[in-house]
Amino acid sequence: MMGNIKIVAFDADDTLWHNEPIFISTRQIYVDMLSRYHDQAWIESRLNDTEMKNLRHFGYGVKSFVLSMIETAIELTEGRIEAESISRIVGMGKEMIVHPTELLPGVEQTVSEMSRNYRLMIATKGDLFDQESKIARSGLGDHFTNVEVMSDKKTAVYSKLLDRYELLPEQFVMIGNSLKSDIIPICELGGHAILVPYDTTWEHENVSEDVAARFNYATADSIGEVPDLVAAIDSAG
Amino acid sequence: MMGNIKIVAFDADDTLWHNEPIFISTRQIYVDMLSRYHDQAWIESRLNDTEMKNLRHFGYGVKSFVLSMIETAIELTEGRIEAESISRIVGMGKEMIVHPTELLPGVEQTVSEMSRNYRLMIATKGDLFDQESKIARSGLGDHFTNVEVMSDKKTAVYSKLLDRYELLPEQFVMIGNSLKSDIIPICELGGHAILVPYDTTWEHENVSEDVAARFNYATADSIGEVPDLVAAIDSAG
Repeated sequence: MMGNIKIVAFDADDTLWHNEPIFISTRQIYVDMLSRYHDQAWIESRLNDTEMKNLRHFGYGVKSFVLSMIETAIELTEGRIEAESISRIVGMGKEMIVHPTELLPGVEQTVSEMSRNYRLMIATKGDLFDQESKIARSGLGDHFTNVEVMSDKKTAVYSKLLDRYELLPEQFVMIGNSLKSDIIPICELGGHAILVPYDTTWEHENVSEDVAARFNYATADSIGEVPDLVAAIDSAG
Repeated sequence: MMGNIKIVAFDADDTLWHNEPIFISTRQIYVDMLSRYHDQAWIESRLNDTEMKNLRHFGYGVKSFVLSMIETAIELTEGRIEAESISRIVGMGKEMIVHPTELLPGVEQTVSEMSRNYRLMIATKGDLFDQESKIARSGLGDHFTNVEVMSDKKTAVYSKLLDRYELLPEQFVMIGNSLKSDIIPICELGGHAILVPYDTTWEHENVSEDVAARFNYATADSIGEVPDLVAAIDSAG
C-alpha cells in the first residue's frame, strides 16, 4: 500500500499540541507585572525586540524567553525592578516547562492511524530539553520512529536532515502550522508539505500572502484531513 | 580495511574542545561578585545545589546555568542583589555562548585522520543551541557525518540512539572524558568505549573507582592514542 513516501514528519508546537497560548498567557502576566512602569504595547514591543536580538545568543525555547523577560524588565524599569519580581519571572519559566501538554483535537487518532502505514517523525524547532519533555508528556512518543529537534527550521537544515536519512525530498512530507518554518523550506527543496493553520501564530513566523502564493503545498482545515492528503500525495508520487 | 565498527562517536565538551574552564572562570567571576554577601565556599555550594535542583526544569547548558546563577544570587542576598548585577549575570551567559571554541591538542589531526576510515559522530549532552554553535565554531563539522545532541547521556538514551541507526552495540565505539556519561552506559549496552580523561571534570560527573572497575573499557592518555585503540577494537571485532 506504500507509494513513494518514506517519512511523514510533523511539526510539534501548535501542530500536535497547544504551545503559543502558554507563551501568550505568560506574556500577559509579565505585562501586568510591569504595568506600573509602562503601558502594555510598549512592554510587549520591547520584549519582542529583546527576544529577536537574543535569538542569536540563546536560540528558541522557554529558557531563552525567560532570559529575555528578565533582561527587558531590567531595562524597562531602569534597574528599579525588585529581585522578587525577577524570581517570579524565573518561576514563570518553570511553570511553562511543567505545563501539561494539551493535544490539539484529532491529533491522537490521526497520529495513531498514520503510524500503522507510515514511518512518522517529529521535526520540531526549539530547545531540546523543552521539546523532549513535551513529547514525553504528550503520550504520543510511541507513534513516532524519529524525533528531530532542530535549532532552526531553515531550508539548509532540512536539507541536511534529508541527507542524514538518505531521503530524496519527494519521499518526505512535512506537516505543520508555520508557512515560514514548516512549509516553504520543504517546498524549496522539492518535498511535499501540508499546512494545518493554527489560530494564533507567533509574529516572527508570519509570511505575506504574496510570498506564500509562490509555493505549492496542500492546506488542511484540521489535522483530521491529513491522512487523506498524505495518501493522495503518496499514490500520485 | 574496515572491521566490525560502523560508527565512531566522540563526546564534544572536554573531549574535542575545552568547556569546563569557561564554566569555572564564569563561576569565579560570579563568586567574586557576591563575595560581600557570603564566603566563596557557601556561594559555590548553594549554586551547585540550585543547578542540581534545576536540571529537571531546565536541563544542561549555558542558559540553564545562567538561570541558576540568577536564582541563587537572589536567594543568597535575600533579594538585595541589584538589577545591574543580574544584568551582568545575563551578560556572562552571552559571553560564554560566543566564547571561542578552543580545541584540545591533537584533536584536529585525529579527527581528520579517522574521518577517512570511519563514519564519525558527535554524541554530546547539553543544550542544542549551545552545542550546534560550538560545533560550527570548532571548524570540525565537516569531519562528522552525524551530530547527536542528547538531553541526557543515560543508557536508555544511547540504546534508542543505536536503534535509530540500526546498530548493534558492538558496532559502536564511544570516546569521551566522562565515565558516567560516555563510558559506563556504553559498556552496559555491550558497546566499546574509550576514556580520554580531561584534567577537570564537573563534580556531577564523578564516579568512584570501585564502580569504574566493574566495566571494561580502554583508556587513552590523549586523543592521539585513539586511532590505534579503535583500529585494535575494529580488527578484534
